Amino acid sequence: MNPSFHKCWLSDTPDAVPRTVREAAEAELIGLNVPYRINVTNGGDGFTISREGDVYILSGGETGILYGAFRLRTLLINEPPAFREISESPSFTHRIINHWDNINGNIERGYSGRSFFFDNNDIKYDTARLRHYARMLASLGINGVSVNNVNVTVPAMKLITPERLPKLAEMAQIFRPYGVRLILSVSFASPVVLGGLPSADPLNAETAAWWKEQMNLVYSYIPDLMGVVVKADSENQPGPFHYGRDHADGANMLAKALAPHGGYVYWRCFVYNCRQDWRDGDTDRPKYPYENFMPLDGRFDENVVLQIKNGPYDFQIREPVSPLLGAMKHTAQALEFQIAQEYTGQQVDLCFLPSLWREVLNEDFKIKHIAAVANTGNDYNWFGGYLAGANLYGYGRMAWDSSLTPEAVADEWCSLMFEDAEARGVVKNMLLKSRGIYESYTTPMSLGWFVRPATHYGPDPLGYEFSQWGTYHRADENAVGIDRTERGTGLTRQYPPKTAALYDDINTCPEELLLFFHRVPYSHILKNGSTLLQHLYECHFKGAEDAEGLLTDWTALEGKVPEEIFSNVLSRLRLQVKNAREWRDVFNTFFYRLTGEGDRQGRKIYS
Amino acid sequence: MNPSFHKCWLSDTPDAVPRTVREAAEAELIGLNVPYRINVTNGGDGFTISREGDVYILSGGETGILYGAFRLRTLLINEPPAFREISESPSFTHRIINHWDNINGNIERGYSGRSFFFDNNDIKYDTARLRHYARMLASLGINGVSVNNVNVTVPAMKLITPERLPKLAEMAQIFRPYGVRLILSVSFASPVVLGGLPSADPLNAETAAWWKEQMNLVYSYIPDLMGVVVKADSENQPGPFHYGRDHADGANMLAKALAPHGGYVYWRCFVYNCRQDWRDGDTDRPKYPYENFMPLDGRFDENVVLQIKNGPYDFQIREPVSPLLGAMKHTAQALEFQIAQEYTGQQVDLCFLPSLWREVLNEDFKIKHIAAVANTGNDYNWFGGYLAGANLYGYGRMAWDSSLTPEAVADEWCSLMFEDAEARGVVKNMLLKSRGIYESYTTPMSLGWFVRPATHYGPDPLGYEFSQWGTYHRADENAVGIDRTERGTGLTRQYPPKTAALYDDINTCPEELLLFFHRVPYSHILKNGSTLLQHLYECHFKGAEDAEGLLTDWTALEGKVPEEIFSNVLSRLRLQVKNAREWRDVFNTFFYRLTGEGDRQGRKIYS
Repeated sequence: MNPSFHKCWLSDTPDAVPRTVREAAEAELIGLNVPYRINVTNGGDGFTISREGDVYILSGGETGILYGAFRLRTLLINEPPAFREISESPSFTHRIINHWDNINGNIERGYSGRSFFFDNNDIKYDTARLRHYARMLASLGINGVSVNNVNVTVPAMKLITPERLPKLAEMAQIFRPYGVRLILSVSFASPVVLGGLPSADPLNAETAAWWKEQMNLVYSYIPDLMGVVVKADSENQPGPFHYGRDHADGANMLAKALAPHGGYVYWRCFVYNCRQDWRDGDTDRPKYPYENFMPLDGRFDENVVLQIKNGPYDFQIREPVSPLLGAMKHTAQALEFQIAQEYTGQQVDLCFLPSLWREVLNEDFKIKHIAAVANTGNDYNWFGGYLAGANLYGYGRMAWDSSLTPEAVADEWCSLMFEDAEARGVVKNMLLKSRGIYESYTTPMSLGWFVRPATHYGPDPLGYEFSQWGTYHRADENAVGIDRTERGTGLTRQYPPKTAALYDDINTCPEELLLFFHRVPYSHILKNGSTLLQHLYECHFKGAEDAEGLLTDWTALEGKVPEEIFSNVLSRLRLQVKNAREWRDVFNTFFYRLTGEGDRQGRKIYS
Repeated sequence: MNPSFHKCWLSDTPDAVPRTVREAAEAELIGLNVPYRINVTNGGDGFTISREGDVYILSGGETGILYGAFRLRTLLINEPPAFREISESPSFTHRIINHWDNINGNIERGYSGRSFFFDNNDIKYDTARLRHYARMLASLGINGVSVNNVNVTVPAMKLITPERLPKLAEMAQIFRPYGVRLILSVSFASPVVLGGLPSADPLNAETAAWWKEQMNLVYSYIPDLMGVVVKADSENQPGPFHYGRDHADGANMLAKALAPHGGYVYWRCFVYNCRQDWRDGDTDRPKYPYENFMPLDGRFDENVVLQIKNGPYDFQIREPVSPLLGAMKHTAQALEFQIAQEYTGQQVDLCFLPSLWREVLNEDFKIKHIAAVANTGNDYNWFGGYLAGANLYGYGRMAWDSSLTPEAVADEWCSLMFEDAEARGVVKNMLLKSRGIYESYTTPMSLGWFVRPATHYGPDPLGYEFSQWGTYHRADENAVGIDRTERGTGLTRQYPPKTAALYDDINTCPEELLLFFHRVPYSHILKNGSTLLQHLYECHFKGAEDAEGLLTDWTALEGKVPEEIFSNVLSRLRLQVKNAREWRDVFNTFFYRLTGEGDRQGRKIYS
């Protein structure tokens, strides 16, 4: 194993092989020499660290002691803590990581190597590595992990059969002492494919019975399975629509199979028409999640959790918050983030996502579950680029404490990663400005997409413009963007009236969301006095320059951070500078060719 | 084997398994009951069919008798021939088919199934099918066939080793009785990869010796190998540039290894910078073949044949004739066509290529060799779409007689394919108008490219615009096209002065080549009185309509052609209509968004 294997925020691996959560907690406390008591309570996961006299940890549950131990480690990393008592309890009860690992070993949208769960259509893992991963997740308070891709292939369907369950149960036992429960992605078509039933119709008694029996079997192997995640009727995955049923029919049928075991059905709301005709300007993809699910509010079983992406599109660098989030008053929901930087730099370009997540978490949704797509893989450093580790760290911390600021997260992570004080300051600053920089040289003002369809990396102005995916900007010689106001596709009507009114008016709509909600003439004057066109140019000149600034910042850290981290990040920042220049030039040329209008400051735009 | 296996122009398979050309010729003559004599001569391949008294065939060689037999069969297909004597001899001495078959069984740019030479990284073929193919080629006068892709992978390199040569020799023997000689694609890197030499430098004595020995070995298995084809320093293939040598150094080194055996080196001139920066407007890809090779005229060995694509770009629906063709006075050349419709409809859209080839063959190049990329595959009907068979037929016939008109070729092929007189007339008419229709709804006036990079099918206006491939149209709000005149990139200077002057002047440049040679404002008035923009719109409305016309034409033939052919072609024409509409709408919308100017006849252009 590479010695740098665990160069994340946990730079040590304890020798312990805990069999229970209590043993895991005790192993973490050995070096700290701190006693604990399980009796007082702020919930099983919450804890109190007190230093009245000696330091000790109190919790109502073993996991609380484990989380408290990790918290204390962090607090002690630099100096003895100044607090007298800290009490914490998590913002979300279920804090989940979704892996998009295919059972063949590839990871969909994975940018840090292959799967550490699967290979060659089978379960295959390195026990020590998996235990280290479980501990990493525990150190952040993560308590659920789905291991296989939501796009479930036929070999992956077999995970819920006796052929695979024994091995899966072994995997669950590696996670269990760290308080992490398994989740499985299942295919709605399983009763047909695995069970040989004529139909997967959720109202078919035979189908429901098959799922019940199958889930009984799964729980006989993994009694604490947190549940299943389902991508149904989405991007060509099978679902209840095929049988003329709706999502409530589908989800409830599964929920009844899981309820006796206390399991949840995480039912994804990423449902839209993925065979749109670009000529059809009335259909508007981001309206679909709300349109499909809102009318079903009240019809879902208690253990169905609708899992909703943070924005109505798909993990773009900026989107408005999904109107569906928090809107359903009688349905449990999970907020879904993506840690993997599919559209946000692919763990090459620096993009600190807590800045984005902060904006979403500012909303008061009353949501208990949170999930996010993993950015880890079998690369020796877990994340491809070391700095991408800050995103997993940030996700875990904000899932635990949704009031945390990006500054606090960056501060914490840097203090765990770097010994050198200057390095900590520089990296923190790089992280905090990175999302704005990435947004600036790619698609500012929520324009979105504009990427190469095959890879989702790098600029391709018309790559999605004449495709079936419903992601159009319709830039012409006068204007760009889609009118989604009440005068356009009407998406704004999915928001509460006050918010809708705010978005409907081009003068009150937050400018960073302008091109999502409005079709805007290039001559439109923004609050800073620029025309839209000039501002788009400016963003790209500035963004590319700032990307170079990140490289300069980092270069100054040579010798102040471990050489391996230095060169790893350096190579990625160099690629980022190249990518940013390409975005700048392609983007600006595209709009220059449309408008014939150059940069008002005379900077170079290629013809 | 599917009964429709050989529904090409040869609708029968003789039982004979000829061991010699004479036996093959005799097998063809059995049914005709015609005597032959080998003594008089118009060359070994030429023949005379005389009917002074009884019909008989005369030739100076056995292959001439074989070709004469096939010719006679064609003449007799409808009625007894009216001629007294026909004498023919071929326009090109070497009439070659290049397969781009990968040894893993895929075919690069293949649209009719998998390879019938290779599978699973080995030689694998059906003997009966291969014999039928050899006979098909012989019926057209083809006398050389390269079996493996010019992009030579490591496993394919091994074709010239004892591991593969015995099987390859067996394959050669199947072709031999039909007068078809094998050719192999070889990699310039073979001495390093196969031979373990430190260098493939062509001026290195060890390298040259390795090739000599290797070729001696190859010829010991296949004594009549026509030669090798080499793609060197082209699209990331290895070549002499790597060692600071030029193409003459590279080709001559190989030529010396082949010369003792009478073999040729077909050295492709498809060499250009495939890592261009789109921002660089000075570099001009189609200038490269001439620039790379013209200065080397006189330095090539006699048995080096420079193989030159018909146009300076890459098999677009229309290009000017390559300025390199015929320009080198002291170098043997081969003209290269593509029968596979990579950019011209992929054997789905109807596009009768003899119409295109006619324009090229009108030039008097004094060239002895001709080659073309095959369009055959393991589909039971050889061509995917039945009508694509007319292109292989047309290539063979025009390689034999370069004065043949598309009308004559279409006439002949239809008479061999269809019994029904109306069907013959309708299909002939469809074939003859098809190239113009395809050109009209895709890229008229030699605009070229504009296709989806991944597939080369369907429209993607900016798919190549910001890529490394050097294929830009640079359309902006005022104009489109590249100025390649003496005022621009200067490509026109590669032509003789009179031709250059013709192309340089926008008023004398043939309008079908306008956007290749000129950057033209949309307001430019064409000879028909239209503006360029309106003409581009018109072409697309008309082209899409005419594509529907092809479908209508064909639909009327139900019951008049074999059902299997009817439905096969019907399904493809339906796809073509869809493709043509997509081209029309995407193309027109792209230019409408750039210009804000609609169709003057008010036809629908989507915004």
